[in-house]
Amino acid sequence: MSDPAAALTREVRDRVAAAPDPRLREILDAAVRHLHGFAAEVGLTPDEWLAGIRFLTAVGHRCDAQRQEFILLSDTLGLSSLVETVAHPSGAATEATVLGPFYVPDAPWRAAGDSIAVADPGGQPVLVRGRVRGPAGAGLPDAVLDVWQCASNGLYDVQDPAQPRGNMRGRFRADGTGGYAFRTSRPVCYPIPDDGPVGELLRAGGRHPWRAAHIHVIVSAAGHQPVTTHLFDAEGSYLDSDAVFGVRPSLVKEFLPQPDGSTLVEHDFVLRAA
Amino acid sequence: MSDPAAALTREVRDRVAAAPDPRLREILDAAVRHLHGFAAEVGLTPDEWLAGIRFLTAVGHRCDAQRQEFILLSDTLGLSSLVETVAHPSGAATEATVLGPFYVPDAPWRAAGDSIAVADPGGQPVLVRGRVRGPAGAGLPDAVLDVWQCASNGLYDVQDPAQPRGNMRGRFRADGTGGYAFRTSRPVCYPIPDDGPVGELLRAGGRHPWRAAHIHVIVSAAGHQPVTTHLFDAEGSYLDSDAVFGVRPSLVKEFLPQPDGSTLVEHDFVLRAA
Repeated sequence: MSDPAAALTREVRDRVAAAPDPRLREILDAAVRHLHGFAAEVGLTPDEWLAGIRFLTAVGHRCDAQRQEFILLSDTLGLSSLVETVAHPSGAATEATVLGPFYVPDAPWRAAGDSIAVADPGGQPVLVRGRVRGPAGAGLPDAVLDVWQCASNGLYDVQDPAQPRGNMRGRFRADGTGGYAFRTSRPVCYPIPDDGPVGELLRAGGRHPWRAAHIHVIVSAAGHQPVTTHLFDAEGSYLDSDAVFGVRPSLVKEFLPQPDGSTLVEHDFVLRAA
Repeated sequence: MSDPAAALTREVRDRVAAAPDPRLREILDAAVRHLHGFAAEVGLTPDEWLAGIRFLTAVGHRCDAQRQEFILLSDTLGLSSLVETVAHPSGAATEATVLGPFYVPDAPWRAAGDSIAVADPGGQPVLVRGRVRGPAGAGLPDAVLDVWQCASNGLYDVQDPAQPRGNMRGRFRADGTGGYAFRTSRPVCYPIPDDGPVGELLRAGGRHPWRAAHIHVIVSAAGHQPVTTHLFDAEGSYLDSDAVFGVRPSLVKEFLPQPDGSTLVEHDFVLRAA
């Protein structure tokens, strides 16, 4: 046998080729090639393999209804960001970025111009407004913006018993010309939850856990592809070292000071045809 | 930007290059390249990514003190076998194979020739004997064999409340010339635990969960590299489709019928110098 490792990889690939579903077959074949390629390339030792098994087990045990440590792991390895990048090639449309672990479906519907900051005493008011457009530039009537953000203490409602559920979250329907407006608090930087195994990995890797300040939005409209994206504060920190590789230059926005002390963000979202 | 996915992979590799430990840096760099390479190559969709997150989370939740679903996953993807193959290049020494999820440290010490089958009513008696040798062929005095196996019902003691702890397990010390002998029951084929997410993946992939019949042994001796290996029954099933890719032709042994109805396996283990 010239190369027993290569022969074993071949044997495993032959075995997973039995998967009846062609897409599962394709994914398993690539997973086996890359997994084996990784282990063979670095010469992964049995002790290192066991450390990896223990790490993944700890990540799994840290997952519960409130905490998704595998998404944090995917985020901090840039995988989540890559999947969004591959799914939404850049071009004229709004760039996609990571969903993150704090999205909660079925956020409360709010009226245009209302604030998602139901309870955020320290928040600096921001008005975000603009238009949801199709690929040719036309406004998309009745587009929906599903918005969420941490409060000014750096915590999402699901992390913070002091916040009412649905705080800093809201769904907004655009008007008949795609125009939208909502209010929130100016976003703050916050560390991703780093008291678990992913935090240990970040520390071992000499990395910080901070995210650049951002507002999460999923924008959708009939007949168009939805986009999961962020708006980043151009004056915030960590734009060059966001812990989850979420920053795209096209999503970094000026928060324009207004006479009343609030700030204004103007942004048009552009969706692809479905 | 020519290729946003490649640019993102580059950014993540630059970030993990900050790891102070050179080995961690090497492992993280290769992990990121292969993880991103996998996702980009198959065009992993956000829905498929989420299915993967849910699968890994389910694997983690299935792990407890008695069950190691991540080792099962590694085993059924051939990764465990690959790691052993890379760690122990073939040659004159005994080939290594997977540890499996049922190893328990500190098995009871037993006298030479004793049986590990303390409680195995249906078992067919087997005597296993031979010598533990060094690379030049000399017997290795006081070598230790740590032996474990499922009972004749296909279950290990840790899976089966009806078996006493330590049943079908034992440590044996070789004599002054490396000679060893132990008794057990003839091994049976058994399915790996397939009532969890790994079992679901096997079924989706059109694969069976059966292991070829085997006896587990870890052989160690002062001044030599230990080897984690199996002895397979040449008359057993699944030698060509062992669910965890553990079979090596050099480890497949004849169980020789004896006049008293038992069988005899003669096998020398050869260890590398440390």
